[in-house]
Amino acid sequence: MEEPGTKSSPRDRIVDTATALFRKHGIRGIGVDAIVEAAGTNKMTLYRHFGSKDELVAECIRGQAAHADEKWAKLACEYPNDPVGQLGGWIKMVANYICTEVHGCDLVNTAIELHEDEHPARAVIAEFKTVHLRKLAEVCRAAGAADPELLANTLYMLMEGARVSRQINGADGPSARFMRVAEAAVAASIAAGVAGAAEVG
Amino acid sequence: MEEPGTKSSPRDRIVDTATALFRKHGIRGIGVDAIVEAAGTNKMTLYRHFGSKDELVAECIRGQAAHADEKWAKLACEYPNDPVGQLGGWIKMVANYICTEVHGCDLVNTAIELHEDEHPARAVIAEFKTVHLRKLAEVCRAAGAADPELLANTLYMLMEGARVSRQINGADGPSARFMRVAEAAVAASIAAGVAGAAEVG
Repeated sequence: MEEPGTKSSPRDRIVDTATALFRKHGIRGIGVDAIVEAAGTNKMTLYRHFGSKDELVAECIRGQAAHADEKWAKLACEYPNDPVGQLGGWIKMVANYICTEVHGCDLVNTAIELHEDEHPARAVIAEFKTVHLRKLAEVCRAAGAADPELLANTLYMLMEGARVSRQINGADGPSARFMRVAEAAVAASIAAGVAGAAEVG
Repeated sequence: MEEPGTKSSPRDRIVDTATALFRKHGIRGIGVDAIVEAAGTNKMTLYRHFGSKDELVAECIRGQAAHADEKWAKLACEYPNDPVGQLGGWIKMVANYICTEVHGCDLVNTAIELHEDEHPARAVIAEFKTVHLRKLAEVCRAAGAADPELLANTLYMLMEGARVSRQINGADGPSARFMRVAEAAVAASIAAGVAGAAEVG
């Protein structure tokens, strides 16, 4: 988050400031007055760019989602033509989030906090999580998993469960075993895939 | 939830009404005025019994936790001296929650929505989830799992992940595979436990 007075545009400052304040206080715990004050701008500017607080929430979520796309690209660069390596890299990335972002996933937290079915952020979150799951399944398939969708669903549940658990059970709770459990799931699925391919061959 | 005017005490009516309203609107989405009106009582009665809205939230969570204790007792009655059956029963119970309580776990949702570290509900939630995990590990141990704590942590992450995912990815998302993945994890851990015991023997 940049400080007001730097060169970033008022629009970017509002999104960065709101993202940080929503994370700290919850969507309902912070009002537009506090956001514009912290962003060094005014309500008229906020409403001109976003129309409403709900749309600002959706825009903050879009920003987070774009950030996640970059991470998939980074994995592909770090492990070129190595989907097994990419899966291992994904597991390490999630384990790193569990340790460093102890507040959990902003998208999940926002989805849980928002009780209005028609809130504009809800569709953004669902779309992002669907894309995440599809990309994970693609990498599982390329890695030779016996049942790529099942492995992707397993890893996804472990990830979401670990991130939620970190907030409630702390660092020594179940989330401490995320990496071990996820790596074992990947190894078992790839071994079963190899065995299945050998049978067919 | 009983309607106002029935024989339940004002205290019980407040807890039942608040639990339902918090679930629907979120903790911050509902005020004490709306709660006492829906419970057919008044603010003085609410504050006499609970002292504050925060303490009322904690009391609602205690009520949910007590409810969960009954479910462990029920599993022990349904599968007497059969820890493997109890694990299967626990998995079916969670799969049933995923289907019928699509809003997710009230305790997790409350923990995520509350951003104050010192909120009295937070300790109640952490204590309850710790007990849940310990009971699950005890059943895993009795069932002969190779590493009971690891299996309990795995099942716990899958449960929390499935319940969160149900809210975001819908009924056809990863949570639809919860039962299959959890049953496979139990079977693999018990098979490894049997193999380990045979080696020692």
